[in-house]
Amino acid sequence: MTQTLDAKKSTAAAWFRELRDQICASYEAIERELTDSDKPAGTFERTVWSRPDGGSGEMSLMKGRVFEKVGVNISTVHGEFSEQFRSEIPGAAENPKFWASGISLVAHLASPLVPAAHFNTRMICVGDQPARLWFGGGGDLNPMFEIEKDTADFHAAFKKSCDGTDAGFYPAFKAWCDEYFFIPHRNVARGVGGIFYDYLGLNKFGADTTPVTSGRFGKGGVTAEATFTGMQLAANANLDWQQGFAFTQEVGKAFATIYPEIIRRHMFEQWTDEQRHHQLVKRGRYAEYNLLYDRGTRFGLMTGGNTEAILMSLPPVAIWE
Amino acid sequence: MTQTLDAKKSTAAAWFRELRDQICASYEAIERELTDSDKPAGTFERTVWSRPDGGSGEMSLMKGRVFEKVGVNISTVHGEFSEQFRSEIPGAAENPKFWASGISLVAHLASPLVPAAHFNTRMICVGDQPARLWFGGGGDLNPMFEIEKDTADFHAAFKKSCDGTDAGFYPAFKAWCDEYFFIPHRNVARGVGGIFYDYLGLNKFGADTTPVTSGRFGKGGVTAEATFTGMQLAANANLDWQQGFAFTQEVGKAFATIYPEIIRRHMFEQWTDEQRHHQLVKRGRYAEYNLLYDRGTRFGLMTGGNTEAILMSLPPVAIWE
Repeated sequence: MTQTLDAKKSTAAAWFRELRDQICASYEAIERELTDSDKPAGTFERTVWSRPDGGSGEMSLMKGRVFEKVGVNISTVHGEFSEQFRSEIPGAAENPKFWASGISLVAHLASPLVPAAHFNTRMICVGDQPARLWFGGGGDLNPMFEIEKDTADFHAAFKKSCDGTDAGFYPAFKAWCDEYFFIPHRNVARGVGGIFYDYLGLNKFGADTTPVTSGRFGKGGVTAEATFTGMQLAANANLDWQQGFAFTQEVGKAFATIYPEIIRRHMFEQWTDEQRHHQLVKRGRYAEYNLLYDRGTRFGLMTGGNTEAILMSLPPVAIWE
Repeated sequence: MTQTLDAKKSTAAAWFRELRDQICASYEAIERELTDSDKPAGTFERTVWSRPDGGSGEMSLMKGRVFEKVGVNISTVHGEFSEQFRSEIPGAAENPKFWASGISLVAHLASPLVPAAHFNTRMICVGDQPARLWFGGGGDLNPMFEIEKDTADFHAAFKKSCDGTDAGFYPAFKAWCDEYFFIPHRNVARGVGGIFYDYLGLNKFGADTTPVTSGRFGKGGVTAEATFTGMQLAANANLDWQQGFAFTQEVGKAFATIYPEIIRRHMFEQWTDEQRHHQLVKRGRYAEYNLLYDRGTRFGLMTGGNTEAILMSLPPVAIWE
């Protein structure tokens, strides 16, 4: 089955919306399960925004009793890349028109014993006729106190979603995640990893486009070898768009399944003030990472994205000692 | 009196240390004046660090009852600029050797009715024979609830320190401050301003150096016209090094005098939970600014500076709603 470009766009956007609905419903169910709390169960508040240059998004924000703050954003936007960014985006120098749709999620939990988590997947289309298109995304787990079984199960879920498509994906996308979510000025990993990938299908999905073999890929001003390896594999993986989309769905389903499992393992445990303090310090590191290095954050803010939606990732409260 | 380059360096470094001692003593005195508190008066803790590539610094950190967190750093470092930064620093492409000494201060007050403040001054030397050298610095006030008289007096103190040297300085350096401490993604000013200047004497102090007339000057990736105007004035001001150093001292004395006055006006006032909440939200904006845009922060972290000293500017606690 070959879909038109418009059909591919609407299929992807519809999936991100469906996944958002599933995830929000499952998190609200978790809120209701914590019955020994003074606080009421949280529910998501939804805010719709539109982008002056084209497109719109929906923020879903919940401040609950299990989820201290969780944001789930979906957006489908289009426009033209500014001069400043064209050199950083494959194909944008030839044709700066872009279309992008995706889902992005960051969860900060009330309990320091429940890991925070980040997840996103997106489809990007640059140009027109010919168009370059690709998928990107991933997820990573950010425990305050690592539990080996949580880490192992989180990775196993993503490995399974990768292996069904390409046995090379998991090792490459795990390494890319470790490299991407490293905090260089602290010399520590942000969390215990997961997977991170980008440019999936870049040289496969777009008919009649010149293959991209190098470029500036990495976090804020940093380019490393691992990124290139992962990028080469993703860009040249033997997939058609339909298979890339199916992989994107698998990654979303993996996160939607495993993270609630991990939350339920720990959400009823008692914690101490010292553990809470440690959590708030770790959250400061998380804020540092997102503001200093996260490509989506910096890119979004500097291209006139929706500030509230982009910064929904920041922790509800953080400390710097 | 003409000093050798080495004498200029040691004279400037000694001043920054002397100013640090004065300021720390005056802030400890303020701590002792707040007698109706359950907490003891704060005192500064000092940590000495050395830089693997050359030089050292001293952090002075106080967590008190008036000053919730105040850091006063001095450092004198030297080395070579990495390839990545040479294009951004006047003269570094020809000779990447540098020497830098300065004082940097950020104060976050316990009371939301007392403004936060930032101040720094520095001397930079790039190259050797010939060497380019200049001063930079400034200070800005960050009230949670603006009081007109505080703003007026803070500006008047800096205006006085400027006017004694060049009547053009205050308007240009005030504009530069407004431009530099603007938070574009929030479309708000970080605070109520003050002065900001850089490259003072760039084309005057260094004998036998080619005048610099343009370049990349501004916060993280942003270059604006006001910066160029201020930069041109500073770089070409009719000063010798001794006059530039005297101006640097005046700016330091102005801040050392006016900020304690403003603190004492408000430190005994009672505040509400709502005011405290507003303060913590404003502090989140402050953290955003420093991590996303502050040149010193990004530059310091990405050139292997001392992370603890650089991030001492971050607030003790901040919230993102």
